Amino acid sequence: MKVVLGASSKQLGERIAQLLNVPKVPVTFKSFPDGESYIKLEGDLQNEEAVIVQTTSPPQDSRLIQLALMADAAKRNGAKKVRAVVPYLAYARQDKIFLQGEALSIETIANMLKVAGVDSLITVNVHEEKALSKFPFPAKTVSAIPALAEYFKQQHIENAFALAPDMGARYIAEQAQQVLKGGCGYLEKQRDRYTGQVSIETRSLDVKGKTVIIFDDIISTGGTIIAAAKILKELGPGAVYAACVHALLIGDAEKRILDAGVKEIVGTDSVPSHVSKVSLAPLIAKQLRS
Amino acid sequence: MKVVLGASSKQLGERIAQLLNVPKVPVTFKSFPDGESYIKLEGDLQNEEAVIVQTTSPPQDSRLIQLALMADAAKRNGAKKVRAVVPYLAYARQDKIFLQGEALSIETIANMLKVAGVDSLITVNVHEEKALSKFPFPAKTVSAIPALAEYFKQQHIENAFALAPDMGARYIAEQAQQVLKGGCGYLEKQRDRYTGQVSIETRSLDVKGKTVIIFDDIISTGGTIIAAAKILKELGPGAVYAACVHALLIGDAEKRILDAGVKEIVGTDSVPSHVSKVSLAPLIAKQLRS
Repeated sequence: MKVVLGASSKQLGERIAQLLNVPKVPVTFKSFPDGESYIKLEGDLQNEEAVIVQTTSPPQDSRLIQLALMADAAKRNGAKKVRAVVPYLAYARQDKIFLQGEALSIETIANMLKVAGVDSLITVNVHEEKALSKFPFPAKTVSAIPALAEYFKQQHIENAFALAPDMGARYIAEQAQQVLKGGCGYLEKQRDRYTGQVSIETRSLDVKGKTVIIFDDIISTGGTIIAAAKILKELGPGAVYAACVHALLIGDAEKRILDAGVKEIVGTDSVPSHVSKVSLAPLIAKQLRS
Repeated sequence: MKVVLGASSKQLGERIAQLLNVPKVPVTFKSFPDGESYIKLEGDLQNEEAVIVQTTSPPQDSRLIQLALMADAAKRNGAKKVRAVVPYLAYARQDKIFLQGEALSIETIANMLKVAGVDSLITVNVHEEKALSKFPFPAKTVSAIPALAEYFKQQHIENAFALAPDMGARYIAEQAQQVLKGGCGYLEKQRDRYTGQVSIETRSLDVKGKTVIIFDDIISTGGTIIAAAKILKELGPGAVYAACVHALLIGDAEKRILDAGVKEIVGTDSVPSHVSKVSLAPLIAKQLRS
């Protein structure tokens, strides 16, 4: 096994190779003046299993094309198997045909990666796990929520209440609670049958004076977290944190989240930035070992 | 047959549909805040031959992904055949393995388009025609050089000398000369066997006082055209024009070309801009009819 260091996840790739004690294959990346990507693998892959680590956070399309080109190059250089490690999997939210005329984007992407040379894929907290079931190769999602919760524990923030900002993220709060042991819950939208008005059910949330961590899989523009933080404020909590696996933080999301009363944002190196305080390397190395 | 109007070539698609007198299928394009593309075909394609018109000039990767998503959506909506019209074909210059470890980018792209649903492809003045021979579907390149030369004739710029800036573009100057009838030639690099110095052979070029049009397939950063214009100046030509099929004009290329003494740049709607004065629609409509 050798770990191919994709440009979007170079440091994560290096950490994974180190934990597995296997060689790294550096990659030369260039952008031509017109914006075309060029890649060149700098290492032998003859009869090797190649693990290509490349997240596809923005700019998604370029990183997807780079991933495809790396898979092609790996196969041309003799790799017997190509495993793609794609912590943030772009287009995963377009996993159904909602309206006629749409593409089934995530399946199209998966089929294209397959033909480029990808034989299997590992991703992290994909939006809908069942989206992976139709992939043309084995695809698995692993959860980084326990690792995020551990981070808080190590910072001596124990017994924190784990809050999911909506019902879809309920499983996330439950996973966090198993580490933090401070209780968990989620914000539930309720629509009044007569007026149609949407309200959030909070009566069941007992967070007065407690440290609360809002957990989610992804923070994009921050709208969901900000709405949750505002509702939370009315319940008189102690310190409020936000934790997520994929901290895209589009535009001024970070500032707006902090302005909404969140003390700190904690993300992973799925999307490398100054908030990626938790590395996915141990989690992914464990998967690759098994 | 119906023409699907890709976002990057909407006007060209409309012109092609009009010339062929076939229905158009508009496409809704959206970019999510994080940059992911969303497409939705707004028309029925049941049992139809779908012609998707989408150039892949910069941003290449996003336009390639959009093309793949449109092909997928067309097939899901019952299209029996998908023909892609891609005037500027991105990655076409990466058509060989020059160094070990590289990807064969253009083949990877073609394979990915195939699996997304593309059944055949028409492009215009691709950099290396033989690159198309390994595509997993019928792929054809047509030349827009006669149409560019015709443009000058219509502007009463006849008998102009057609100059190719290098030997690779020689066929282009020859095609233009068949319309313009003012002679043609190319700039030939010569390397001195002893000093290794590169010089340009110009003795055979008799352009004194003549109108000269520098023809090329693509203008990217403009380096080639600018070098040619500078050499040309020493030969005392009349007015100098630049004509090309794919006028990418990266950065300040346009200004630098005009500063080098070129009177006007003429391109096609392969890359829509204010210099795309020649439409590819008649040429492509003719191909689609045959």
